[in-house]
Amino acid sequence: MTLAPPSSRVQLTDDGKLRHFLSLEHLSRPLLEDILDTAAGFVDVGGRAIKKVPLLRGKTVVNLFFESSTRTRSTFELAAKRLSADVLTLDIAKSATSKGETLLDTLRNLEAMAADMFVVRHQDSGAPFFIAEQVTPRVAVINAGDGRHAHPTQAMLDMYTIRHYKGGFEGLKVAIVGDILHSRVARSQIHALNILGAEEVRVIAPRTLLPADADALGATVFTDMVQGIEDVDVVIMLRLQKERMDSALLPSEGEFFRLYGLTNEKLSHAKPDAIVMHPGPINRGVEIASEVADGPRSVILNQVTFGIAVRMAVMSMAISGQESLDAAQAAREESGHGH
Amino acid sequence: MTLAPPSSRVQLTDDGKLRHFLSLEHLSRPLLEDILDTAAGFVDVGGRAIKKVPLLRGKTVVNLFFESSTRTRSTFELAAKRLSADVLTLDIAKSATSKGETLLDTLRNLEAMAADMFVVRHQDSGAPFFIAEQVTPRVAVINAGDGRHAHPTQAMLDMYTIRHYKGGFEGLKVAIVGDILHSRVARSQIHALNILGAEEVRVIAPRTLLPADADALGATVFTDMVQGIEDVDVVIMLRLQKERMDSALLPSEGEFFRLYGLTNEKLSHAKPDAIVMHPGPINRGVEIASEVADGPRSVILNQVTFGIAVRMAVMSMAISGQESLDAAQAAREESGHGH
Amino acid sequence: MTLAPPSSRVQLTDDGKLRHFLSLEHLSRPLLEDILDTAAGFVDVGGRAIKKVPLLRGKTVVNLFFESSTRTRSTFELAAKRLSADVLTLDIAKSATSKGETLLDTLRNLEAMAADMFVVRHQDSGAPFFIAEQVTPRVAVINAGDGRHAHPTQAMLDMYTIRHYKGGFEGLKVAIVGDILHSRVARSQIHALNILGAEEVRVIAPRTLLPADADALGATVFTDMVQGIEDVDVVIMLRLQKERMDSALLPSEGEFFRLYGLTNEKLSHAKPDAIVMHPGPINRGVEIASEVADGPRSVILNQVTFGIAVRMAVMSMAISGQESLDAAQAAREESGHGH
Repeated sequence: MTLAPPSSRVQLTDDGKLRHFLSLEHLSRPLLEDILDTAAGFVDVGGRAIKKVPLLRGKTVVNLFFESSTRTRSTFELAAKRLSADVLTLDIAKSATSKGETLLDTLRNLEAMAADMFVVRHQDSGAPFFIAEQVTPRVAVINAGDGRHAHPTQAMLDMYTIRHYKGGFEGLKVAIVGDILHSRVARSQIHALNILGAEEVRVIAPRTLLPADADALGATVFTDMVQGIEDVDVVIMLRLQKERMDSALLPSEGEFFRLYGLTNEKLSHAKPDAIVMHPGPINRGVEIASEVADGPRSVILNQVTFGIAVRMAVMSMAISGQESLDAAQAAREESGHGH
Repeated sequence: MTLAPPSSRVQLTDDGKLRHFLSLEHLSRPLLEDILDTAAGFVDVGGRAIKKVPLLRGKTVVNLFFESSTRTRSTFELAAKRLSADVLTLDIAKSATSKGETLLDTLRNLEAMAADMFVVRHQDSGAPFFIAEQVTPRVAVINAGDGRHAHPTQAMLDMYTIRHYKGGFEGLKVAIVGDILHSRVARSQIHALNILGAEEVRVIAPRTLLPADADALGATVFTDMVQGIEDVDVVIMLRLQKERMDSALLPSEGEFFRLYGLTNEKLSHAKPDAIVMHPGPINRGVEIASEVADGPRSVILNQVTFGIAVRMAVMSMAISGQESLDAAQAAREESGHGH
Repeated sequence: MTLAPPSSRVQLTDDGKLRHFLSLEHLSRPLLEDILDTAAGFVDVGGRAIKKVPLLRGKTVVNLFFESSTRTRSTFELAAKRLSADVLTLDIAKSATSKGETLLDTLRNLEAMAADMFVVRHQDSGAPFFIAEQVTPRVAVINAGDGRHAHPTQAMLDMYTIRHYKGGFEGLKVAIVGDILHSRVARSQIHALNILGAEEVRVIAPRTLLPADADALGATVFTDMVQGIEDVDVVIMLRLQKERMDSALLPSEGEFFRLYGLTNEKLSHAKPDAIVMHPGPINRGVEIASEVADGPRSVILNQVTFGIAVRMAVMSMAISGQESLDAAQAAREESGHGH
């Protein structure tokens, strides 16, 4: 089939450049590698005395957080500021929408203020797609986490981290452990690992925290931690939402830790040079033991560092994609074919 | 009478330059036209790849919001940042005043921090005037809406919009429709339209939403929508505050919409090229039908775009007025006449 | 004793440069004078048309406010912006820590985002010390007030103010009046005044608002206001926390004002050219009469102005101290002695 699938049609320009960043499904391996390569340059910026580049100077980035998340908001805010953008943060839950304005009217108003980018966090799966389909061509949309669907910048910073420590994805076995059912992070990671050519992706979870269609995830399913972790190169622990405990999905924190919490003992079944990752914030003694989180194989804090760089990369690439659209449009109008 | 009236004495320097922007009453037509002309340059800035000019670089703009308004705050914040100012936003209701400090002491402290401008939103009519009378000569005060009194930047962006689409004000008939009684926007619009030479200003509202002294407004009063809208060039719909519904002032939303809500049918009584405006956020199906809000005669979103430019104009003109005062003062001191 | 005491070991580099600013105890007179001299340059910046210097351009300053304080946060935010830093403000009480993350994990994450400075306000005495001991060498920590322990930038702006009006500290008698027991400000002021060589420091308070070890404060203790204020050059009034009234510590506001509130009458017992200071926000008619607060001897608002400059000085000196550490470390690694 040569027709691009819907999500890539929304995310890419006609000549394949990123213009929105919503989901990793259907994106190509070269594009993901381009993001990782671009991020590498921004990792250097973070190490300089002056951590600032002028790429987004005079651009307006609007943080549209329908669901609040201090950490994710902070990383995007820092990434935008290091790109020299002006940042406006809107806690939409408390703002104009509460005056009875529709979401679309809020968006139209922000567009009219000449916003260049919306960084969207939303409790509903698909909301950033809806927004990307509705915004004017000039405005780039970045998904900062939507419902149970996707968290693509998190997945890409994870890919950056894996490539940094493992040199690439070929032959790699990666295990993702924990609450797969509710995790937008896991969903995005599985897509990214498959696109980038990892040898095997495994998910490890109790049956109650696996989706009904677990077989369709694109990963091998394990309910036993020791079996699942056997011989892997990378272990990605997911954060266990405390709310799940209160529902009937889980027995107890202690029981979960005994069965799925990552300890040095369980980690010993992975490859000797396996790295340990976690999207944070970590629950010590729930999904991960402190001996592992603070141990020599943990790269959890490096993920955070790479995360700023990956967000700078995605933001600057999307703005650049939008500008190439603008230029193409201007050229068409010049030659009398557009309007 | 050659004596300048009190409000213009506060707002202007001795040689007639803007130094505060509090109310449109008593301002001259050339001054309002100067604001509109200055804004035109900033509309261009909003269309550029780098939406930033250095006019207020190194200046400190303090948003003093005693009444909260995400939208108005955002537009002033963006305007200030595009002028390269540093912006400090204070939600005064939750801040130092709650520690028992007086308003004056809060102001004096912000002045002592070398603030250059206060953007004031207040639930009490006249509060920005009080503040302007109290601040040190160096600090410019911009009214971002006070009680039922004035919202002059909103009115000026409306004037910009009208001039943009109609070329000027001569011969224009303008109808303002809705809750005139509680609207600071309407009050400022009527002043502006009369100063700029509109032929006729009409207000259209049920008796319960008209002030007792409606005849003194400077506008022709209509209680019938169809009669009032007849042959006008511009229809400005006001936002209906839901709170009014609960009081005895209004029958019901449905009844209000039937009598005063703007539909294509009612709009057909205006001139064929009449434009439709609204200060936002709009209540669809209450004061305006979606067919009109989203229709070809609506310029509601253009108002938002022009609003950033008008705020940039007013802010830069007031700072420039304050600086000319400073320079004059320095010259007087130099020549030995100062104190 | 030649060994540096613990607090100065944490705060200073091996060659005696400031790298954190946590407490004035054990700091040397030349260092405090260096801070005051550096601040003098920044007072000039605050008077310029463009109040901005590029010293912290491309640096990330994180305001970590565990205890909320709009005024202190605003002054640090303005100081950082005038140094051209990027500022991220975190209201920690409502943020990641509430997700069950430990303080240390929050710090490690912010470090991983390449933060250069933490400005810490905390309800617990010693928290900024704990943080300074834990952060990576690259990150400077500034104490913006911790429990009852210290508020060193407030004390240094007070010292700046005294030096500005009195020319120096030699021969000076300074009285600090009010709630000594709960005041971190008083504790820091007494340290600073003794280090800088004031002749006599007095504290004046009712017994219930004096610490049990008042004699160890480094100040002469008075319970009678008129006796205590006799012949002093500087009167520093402390803010009376209204909460204290409800506890059994104080009779009533009226009674406190009668005994300890600063009036012109009480002030007449000080030297004729004595200055009056207060950290703000003031309680008029509780600890200070308006006739004094607004009178010719009050320098309360000048303190605020100097406060921005002193914070700019401390922030730029600490960053510079950290950078000299980095450079020394790099040199050691170059010559093969590092690790």
